Amino acid sequence: MRITKRTNIAMRVLMFCGAHEGVLVTKAMVAEKCNTSESHLAQVIYKLAQLGYLYTQRGRSGGFTLARPMAEIVIGDIFREFESEQHNLECFADGDNTCPLVKGCRLRLTLKEALEAFYNRLDKETLDNLVCGNTALLELFVMPSCHSTRPLRTGTDRG
Amino acid sequence: MRITKRTNIAMRVLMFCGAHEGVLVTKAMVAEKCNTSESHLAQVIYKLAQLGYLYTQRGRSGGFTLARPMAEIVIGDIFREFESEQHNLECFADGDNTCPLVKGCRLRLTLKEALEAFYNRLDKETLDNLVCGNTALLELFVMPSCHSTRPLRTGTDRG
Repeated sequence: MRITKRTNIAMRVLMFCGAHEGVLVTKAMVAEKCNTSESHLAQVIYKLAQLGYLYTQRGRSGGFTLARPMAEIVIGDIFREFESEQHNLECFADGDNTCPLVKGCRLRLTLKEALEAFYNRLDKETLDNLVCGNTALLELFVMPSCHSTRPLRTGTDRG
Repeated sequence: MRITKRTNIAMRVLMFCGAHEGVLVTKAMVAEKCNTSESHLAQVIYKLAQLGYLYTQRGRSGGFTLARPMAEIVIGDIFREFESEQHNLECFADGDNTCPLVKGCRLRLTLKEALEAFYNRLDKETLDNLVCGNTALLELFVMPSCHSTRPLRTGTDRG
């Protein structure tokens, strides 16, 4: 199974914003630290904002930041939103399914249940669990050029 | 999440062979009924034979058939074998991981567990469950040109 690049980028953006909670960060900062292009980032940030995960501020001193507490950002929800942009298998491409076995295939239901098991595991994880107390991640995200009003979250304030 | 084309083809081959249990079938038959090219099929059949799922017989009247009972062919095993050919996410590409967050990312472990949950669900399913008693599938697979020594499995003999 392959995870889409956009889901991957969405997770990096959220982890970066989580590590800089309360600070407006910019695309350029995320692009530098997360090894992604600004054009890919722009689309993902737009979607995350539309979904209510990010607050964005336009203008010269603009940027984006988390729009809700990290403990309320469920990883399963992010994966469901971004992975659903493409169908997982021809079986699930309702309008575009050319599989000749569609009328007699029991695998489709089994796969749906297996995918649900995948997402259910991710539902147990929040952004908080991935970021808070994760000093290794926070060190990777240190931005000397980032004029934060608040320090990076460190220590063991997990959960 | 996307399932590879090869996994998809492997499942179609196994279902076709299951429906024609005890009969040597040919690539051309599977290609016709399962909407796949013979060149893709050849690679998948080779791998399935190597893994001990298919018995192949060369020559003019050759072909291939299941090498073990359908109840012993676990769908999770097939998916693990074929999906492992490509890494699921950059996180899992051990020798080729360019993700700058690798040293501080907790998502990797969560994703491994979520993938395991996906496969665990597929482990509960055998080829027998997908084929036996599945009259809709068997009807799709009827081969007028197939000189079977045994009839297609029908009825409700689901194992």
